[in-house]
Amino acid sequence: MSLKRIAILGSTGSIGQSTLSIIESFPERFAVASLAAGRNLEAAFEQACRWRPLAISLATEELAAQLAARLKAAGVTGIEVLHGTAGTVRVATLPEVDFVVSAIVGVAGLEATYAAVEAGKPVGLANKEAMVAAGDLLNAAARAKNVPLLPIDSEHNAIHQCMRAGDLHEVKQIWLTASGGPFRTLPLADFEHITVAQALKHPTWVMGRRITIDSATMLNKGLEIIEACRLFDLPPSAVKVTVHPQSTVHSLVEYVDGSLLAQISVTDMRLPILYAMTWPERVASELTFDMTALSQLTFETPDFERFPCLRLAYEAAETGGAHTIALNAADEIAVEAFLEGVIPFPGIPRTIEQVLEATPHRHPQSITEVLALDEQARETARKLLAPAFRDAATPSRV
Amino acid sequence: MSLKRIAILGSTGSIGQSTLSIIESFPERFAVASLAAGRNLEAAFEQACRWRPLAISLATEELAAQLAARLKAAGVTGIEVLHGTAGTVRVATLPEVDFVVSAIVGVAGLEATYAAVEAGKPVGLANKEAMVAAGDLLNAAARAKNVPLLPIDSEHNAIHQCMRAGDLHEVKQIWLTASGGPFRTLPLADFEHITVAQALKHPTWVMGRRITIDSATMLNKGLEIIEACRLFDLPPSAVKVTVHPQSTVHSLVEYVDGSLLAQISVTDMRLPILYAMTWPERVASELTFDMTALSQLTFETPDFERFPCLRLAYEAAETGGAHTIALNAADEIAVEAFLEGVIPFPGIPRTIEQVLEATPHRHPQSITEVLALDEQARETARKLLAPAFRDAATPSRV
Repeated sequence: MSLKRIAILGSTGSIGQSTLSIIESFPERFAVASLAAGRNLEAAFEQACRWRPLAISLATEELAAQLAARLKAAGVTGIEVLHGTAGTVRVATLPEVDFVVSAIVGVAGLEATYAAVEAGKPVGLANKEAMVAAGDLLNAAARAKNVPLLPIDSEHNAIHQCMRAGDLHEVKQIWLTASGGPFRTLPLADFEHITVAQALKHPTWVMGRRITIDSATMLNKGLEIIEACRLFDLPPSAVKVTVHPQSTVHSLVEYVDGSLLAQISVTDMRLPILYAMTWPERVASELTFDMTALSQLTFETPDFERFPCLRLAYEAAETGGAHTIALNAADEIAVEAFLEGVIPFPGIPRTIEQVLEATPHRHPQSITEVLALDEQARETARKLLAPAFRDAATPSRV
Repeated sequence: MSLKRIAILGSTGSIGQSTLSIIESFPERFAVASLAAGRNLEAAFEQACRWRPLAISLATEELAAQLAARLKAAGVTGIEVLHGTAGTVRVATLPEVDFVVSAIVGVAGLEATYAAVEAGKPVGLANKEAMVAAGDLLNAAARAKNVPLLPIDSEHNAIHQCMRAGDLHEVKQIWLTASGGPFRTLPLADFEHITVAQALKHPTWVMGRRITIDSATMLNKGLEIIEACRLFDLPPSAVKVTVHPQSTVHSLVEYVDGSLLAQISVTDMRLPILYAMTWPERVASELTFDMTALSQLTFETPDFERFPCLRLAYEAAETGGAHTIALNAADEIAVEAFLEGVIPFPGIPRTIEQVLEATPHRHPQSITEVLALDEQARETARKLLAPAFRDAATPSRV
């Protein structure tokens, strides 16, 4: 077995750390090729010392200079220290890289992910916004270069596994499982009064702030619906959601003959990362699921009235192009506004809907165009929310 | 698509009827080649008139003569009417046959199933006793002739589907689901007093009398453990049982990386039959599972104290050969004795255990030897039970 050299985009984040933990567990299979971190200088320094990548990139020139100085002082040599988008792109496309784990949250990782595919690197996708914003472009590049795009999101990874039990044309529909978030059973009338603290408590997964709010509004599941359409070449009508609070079944594929295949595992991201990094092989891990401890699994139909983000996502998935970009961008701005106490919880879907209404139908032909449409949608959202921010800042309101 | 011509061994039974219903639903895919029925002359006559098989076989020469006469009187010509084992073998091996559904319960279907494999016919196996009694021989013949043995049992069919998500050497273990039968929660102390009527009530499936009792003792699951070992080339330690009273998840495969794949579908045997008949394709059917109606699935560890047949099956699976033959044969005799009120419910595993203890270790090299070992085990069981039968017949006991 030959050593697979891994580039990690987002190495200091949760997925990045899990990827490094896998590389540590399988030294005979994997090695670190290169790392792209963000603004966490301390963590980047430690990773550079520990893993000795060929190259490491940070967010800014200043941070890169500081890292280079610290590495020099520590006597660590031979590491190329880079910064910004160009640095991340180089980390993803070095000739020594055999596999790229794309885990930079938001559209920030998009350019480097696209560059990796263009350079013929197999990619493990943990960054769902990349497929949401530029799925058509990524798919076209992957087809042209004949490289696999392997989903690391637990739901899409589960679908990828279940899809092996039949051909794509034999798939009737797929079922993404959703935890339902903390407000699954909250009366609809109380939604206007949801506090930030309530929304930040996720029942199953410990995650970043935006994704936790996205999970509470179910916009996160909406993005996954769009991602699934693009990853698996399915129409939105063939991507369903079932609420499964235990997060044990990670998703299901329903075949035309009436069989459903489901994937079950521990809720540990190392498992889908390992799957993506070893595919088409499976490698023995210690991430065992204890069937004898399994007692109960429940499933419910999601409530579209409580969670209008689901409806908005289906609509954006149908329209595609600029609308899926706007869905994601508007949500990011609206979530910030909610976290700052400027708009109530239902203000998130209301903002997204208004931004979508203001977004023209367009299908971007390049990553540059994708990024421009993304910025445009953010600007629309900011303008829409400006009065709310002004009101919040007015002393009379306190 | 070319027409697949089907031979049905056990055409008047439940699996046989389901197979005919599928052939009726897909006239562009399937046709009846030949039928083997048992003693149900009326049903055989109707099937012959409706399906016009090339050949039909009944249990005895007398029944065959009656059928031939009735067909002649009805003006139905061109159907070869056969009888006995030779007749069933001919039904299974006619040159026109493209696929054999083997659904004759017990070892009776064994010779014809083996002959079908030897003749190079792909076989859908609904007869679990064939693999239990002669799995090694059937596997060797299937390998030599390069024909697939496709399981129709819902559990093994589920495993077959889940196995497609990885390689055999990547399988850690499999989990057969069991309904747990009607006595899953009955206090162990009450087992001596279980009545025949109680034992004949199965919570999920409507089945024949023996298989219903086998489900109540979980010997049925024991036979499935052995069948699974042989179908999927797994050691007994890699075949586990989980009690799942809803019978919605039909079984699971656990891979070495920690992923479990599960198959879910309606409890309708037409689904695994269709799967086997169309494999490696999947064909659209109306056997849809309503995910929106799915609310709860539960799983429990089976209780080996309540169900000693499970332990006996694992032991027989380890020993193999004559012991798996004896397990099945002794059970059939013991179940008859229970149904006639001669022994109590726990007398079934007690009888099996005694027969196993009296059975020498031997690995049969031919179907003839398998049948001889089967008869020998039945004789041992009958001798063991003779005193109980005598006591039951003694008037003073009434």
